[in-house]
Amino acid sequence: MEVDARVEAWASLQLLHDLPSRTLVGLLKHFGGPVELRAASRQSLAKLASTEVAAAIERGPDPKKLETALGWLREPGHTLVAWGDTDYPGPLLSIADPPPVFYYVGRRELLNHAAVAIVGSRNATPQGVEHAEAFGAALSASALTIVSGLASGIDAAAHRGGLSAVGSSIAVVGTGLDRVYPTSNSELAAQLERDGGLLSEFALGTPPVPENFPRRNRVISGLSRGVLVVEATLNSGSLITARLAAEQGREVFAIPGSIHSPFSKGAHRLIREGAKLVETAQDVLEELGIDVATRGSENAPQPAPAQAVPEPSSPSGRVLAALGHDPAGIDLLAWRTGLGAEVITVALVELELAGRVVAMPGGLYQRRS
Amino acid sequence: MEVDARVEAWASLQLLHDLPSRTLVGLLKHFGGPVELRAASRQSLAKLASTEVAAAIERGPDPKKLETALGWLREPGHTLVAWGDTDYPGPLLSIADPPPVFYYVGRRELLNHAAVAIVGSRNATPQGVEHAEAFGAALSASALTIVSGLASGIDAAAHRGGLSAVGSSIAVVGTGLDRVYPTSNSELAAQLERDGGLLSEFALGTPPVPENFPRRNRVISGLSRGVLVVEATLNSGSLITARLAAEQGREVFAIPGSIHSPFSKGAHRLIREGAKLVETAQDVLEELGIDVATRGSENAPQPAPAQAVPEPSSPSGRVLAALGHDPAGIDLLAWRTGLGAEVITVALVELELAGRVVAMPGGLYQRRS
Repeated sequence: MEVDARVEAWASLQLLHDLPSRTLVGLLKHFGGPVELRAASRQSLAKLASTEVAAAIERGPDPKKLETALGWLREPGHTLVAWGDTDYPGPLLSIADPPPVFYYVGRRELLNHAAVAIVGSRNATPQGVEHAEAFGAALSASALTIVSGLASGIDAAAHRGGLSAVGSSIAVVGTGLDRVYPTSNSELAAQLERDGGLLSEFALGTPPVPENFPRRNRVISGLSRGVLVVEATLNSGSLITARLAAEQGREVFAIPGSIHSPFSKGAHRLIREGAKLVETAQDVLEELGIDVATRGSENAPQPAPAQAVPEPSSPSGRVLAALGHDPAGIDLLAWRTGLGAEVITVALVELELAGRVVAMPGGLYQRRS
Repeated sequence: MEVDARVEAWASLQLLHDLPSRTLVGLLKHFGGPVELRAASRQSLAKLASTEVAAAIERGPDPKKLETALGWLREPGHTLVAWGDTDYPGPLLSIADPPPVFYYVGRRELLNHAAVAIVGSRNATPQGVEHAEAFGAALSASALTIVSGLASGIDAAAHRGGLSAVGSSIAVVGTGLDRVYPTSNSELAAQLERDGGLLSEFALGTPPVPENFPRRNRVISGLSRGVLVVEATLNSGSLITARLAAEQGREVFAIPGSIHSPFSKGAHRLIREGAKLVETAQDVLEELGIDVATRGSENAPQPAPAQAVPEPSSPSGRVLAALGHDPAGIDLLAWRTGLGAEVITVALVELELAGRVVAMPGGLYQRRS
């Protein structure tokens, strides 16, 4: 992608791992955007954040790491997606701690398809692999994008199924996007790069470390309307993904199996805890409220609703004009427009209903177009 | 059993099929018991029931059928259990339409054990048969009596499992107790007669007719604290039993299986509708709130709590004395004791807490000893 000042600022902020999400939201809100935040003096930063955070932002990231990131981003098809980008995935914004920025390779429009995650054990049974691929293919044929974690076993089969139909597939990985793991899936990763998508919130060069996988799992469920657990042992990471999904208000689905199979025990536990037992892809579609009859394999994902254009001199028009592509709160908009907070609140509701802005955590709003 | 006037009166009333349960309750309450009801004149009956019912009661049953019933009852071990009998199963009284009277062969004390039903398809898979027998044996070893319907497949395996341990087993059949069906289970029926129990609310000589089986199913669940569905196709009668069980406030348990097996589809549907998914007998015990640690295979069922004896001249003593072994309501007790309704209500609560009387549907009470 074209690396402009905004992309460079986001890439720099991405490299400041220790910056808590909430702090970053507050700082972006105050300074108006990533470029402004990067340009802020330590004194002005120290008024809003700890001395350490202020120092870290002023100091900026390791220049070598930044150069690696920018070099990677300059390659064709390599991109960075940040809060405020119109194609930042809406469902991901609704989770408690959405990643402020992530790296992405592949078809960016897939980020705004309705998606469903399919996860399960690495050492799955042949039957489990078959189920993952069959459910992936059937749900993808109903225009749902299949999200998974690029692991061996169930994950890989789910991606293959998703790639076989219109919904395609996105892999959310726990490493840097320049380090595909496991290497046995490098061919699958190449196919995802071409026909689907690969997503990571971790810096380029990040190796596979166990601590990063639970963080990654919240993005798998966060991107999705529901999570289907195909086969999982009782200590499978898929159970963590399923619980995160439930906490995020996502549907959880599980495929039952023999009471003697250790690979069904995880799914059975989830069902006891409230997950929906599913036997067919149609069960999943019905639970998600997707009308199967109108979503044949030929149907492309639905376009966004038509967006009303506000009159430029109206409060809504002035608020929209004041709203850049980075998130802003009501106080910042009041400062930019000179309007009162109540007028701005009403305007934001109108704009949200018209599909022009989207509400984000922390009282922030971003433009959709 | 010894056929006295009361047994003969109950056997007669049992043969008047067309007599609705609610009408019978009202008439028993009014006349004080089955003997008094049988002796009542058509005129006095007609004040409380329709002309047809009054005529039917006065006319009495077909004498040949009554003689068949009384002849059968005179055989050793053959008995009749009616409302008001102290060993009428308590849980069965809590259902909407408990049978006023039923025939029973076998160990009568089993009627008051904590019980669990195990049901499923006739054409079960070998795996299903194995599960039914294993769960039956394990739950029986925890002193639960296994209730089922003596059908081929799952039912027969459940009985075999139950008979193998201390809890034993009761078959609730949809035919007369003199006609075991299917004949392939006659050896099992003989074992149940000796070591467990066989129960039927249908007249002697009643052949296997499809209409009677759903009625029978409500008794299977009514006797039990929960119903476990092992394997069931979508059109299996076991699903009816499970739904009746849920309506009766019983726990419903189901064993999951492959999504490709037609014999698991019934269980999966039940789980989706709220049945508890179980993998082990311990799961069933835990859901029923049975402390597994204190109920080893050596443990006999718990005795009833010690019963306090009320002072004979106290209101409780007078109410208990006035309460025969047939059900009676507060108005009848008021007439018999000369006490006010409020005093009687308090006395009945005391007696119930002391384990001396049991509350029945329709505001009736019966003595427990």
